[in-house]
Amino acid sequence: MKVIELKASVTASNDRDADELRREMREKGVLLVNLMSAPGAGKTTLLSRLIRDMDGTRIAVMEADIESAVDAEHIEALGAQAIQVHTDGMCHMDAGMTARAWHAMDPDAIDLAVLENVGNLICPAEYDTGAGCNIMILSVPEGDDKPLKYPLMFSRCDALVISKLDALPYFGFDVETCAARARKLNPEIRVFPLSARTGEGMAEFEAWLLDRLDAWRRRP
Amino acid sequence: MKVIELKASVTASNDRDADELRREMREKGVLLVNLMSAPGAGKTTLLSRLIRDMDGTRIAVMEADIESAVDAEHIEALGAQAIQVHTDGMCHMDAGMTARAWHAMDPDAIDLAVLENVGNLICPAEYDTGAGCNIMILSVPEGDDKPLKYPLMFSRCDALVISKLDALPYFGFDVETCAARARKLNPEIRVFPLSARTGEGMAEFEAWLLDRLDAWRRRP
Repeated sequence: MKVIELKASVTASNDRDADELRREMREKGVLLVNLMSAPGAGKTTLLSRLIRDMDGTRIAVMEADIESAVDAEHIEALGAQAIQVHTDGMCHMDAGMTARAWHAMDPDAIDLAVLENVGNLICPAEYDTGAGCNIMILSVPEGDDKPLKYPLMFSRCDALVISKLDALPYFGFDVETCAARARKLNPEIRVFPLSARTGEGMAEFEAWLLDRLDAWRRRP
Repeated sequence: MKVIELKASVTASNDRDADELRREMREKGVLLVNLMSAPGAGKTTLLSRLIRDMDGTRIAVMEADIESAVDAEHIEALGAQAIQVHTDGMCHMDAGMTARAWHAMDPDAIDLAVLENVGNLICPAEYDTGAGCNIMILSVPEGDDKPLKYPLMFSRCDALVISKLDALPYFGFDVETCAARARKLNPEIRVFPLSARTGEGMAEFEAWLLDRLDAWRRRP
């Protein structure tokens, strides 16, 4: 498994780098998904489930972490292409770092490339990575008040996955309240309550992902 | 309830500011605790329990958030002194910001001042806030692999609280494995597995906090 060590990009123009990466990925017909959440919300568990469920779609994963390679090893063991990115202590990925990770992969064997961003609800929301789709996960144990506290993240995402739905009986979390708070910040946001463990809600989320991939490839 | 809006401190020397704040708080006999965790790990729930349990100790709370005042309102409703700090989008508190929040409180009515830092396992670990004690919370649903991924935070803390212990039967979390991983980074770290909901493990943590306060006041 490849591990690459990255430092913050030298270029000052992150937005230009992001647009350039999006153009390049559209030419390849690959949709880049930027997956963000707090630590432990279940990014790797969700990805593992998607890889198992969506067997007609070639999913590859760029795992961004400050240290360790446990997540990339886990993804690779499922038979998917995976690369571990170490961020040199950085709390987020920028477009230049994402492009370097992307260029270390085999683009012809990928439909959906997922950047598993550093576990952080704040800083990653401030950087356009060049993704064609931004998705965040909020897990039930974290609480339904998080849109009030981390508004930028909820504002920037195309979809909110509410994960660990099977833990709902155990925690005081109101899905409708949380969804309403997210929509107040971002009326267009799609909300997918699901459990990657039991499979509840996965089909709707996977169908939406396939629609996004299809739309990405059809757009001129 | 007071709400103060802060921007990053103008001074370049965070460490000098931090030492100055520590000196000032020692003169007042107040121990400042910097409480850090990922979003939703249970900082406010733990503080609420401490305020109810430790009725001989005057606890005051500085709630640092990017937005909202829900946590400070909650703490104030318990009868404790609380102040809400808005960080202007910043992902952490520095010593200058902490000093400004501290100066907005009544120092003569406080034994233990707790800074509830912004929910983030990365950036707050990089800044000395001037606290006399650094404590982090890792909640059971986040997973026992977090010391591998966020090593700086575990290295900088005097104590690791493993919270939501009552959710242990529901999640695959090994307390001993997690504690061993934390101690590998930081041999001196004290580990307190507890549940603020059921009260399990609270007495040990509270006794340790009182010892720290006592030691802080006795040190010349």
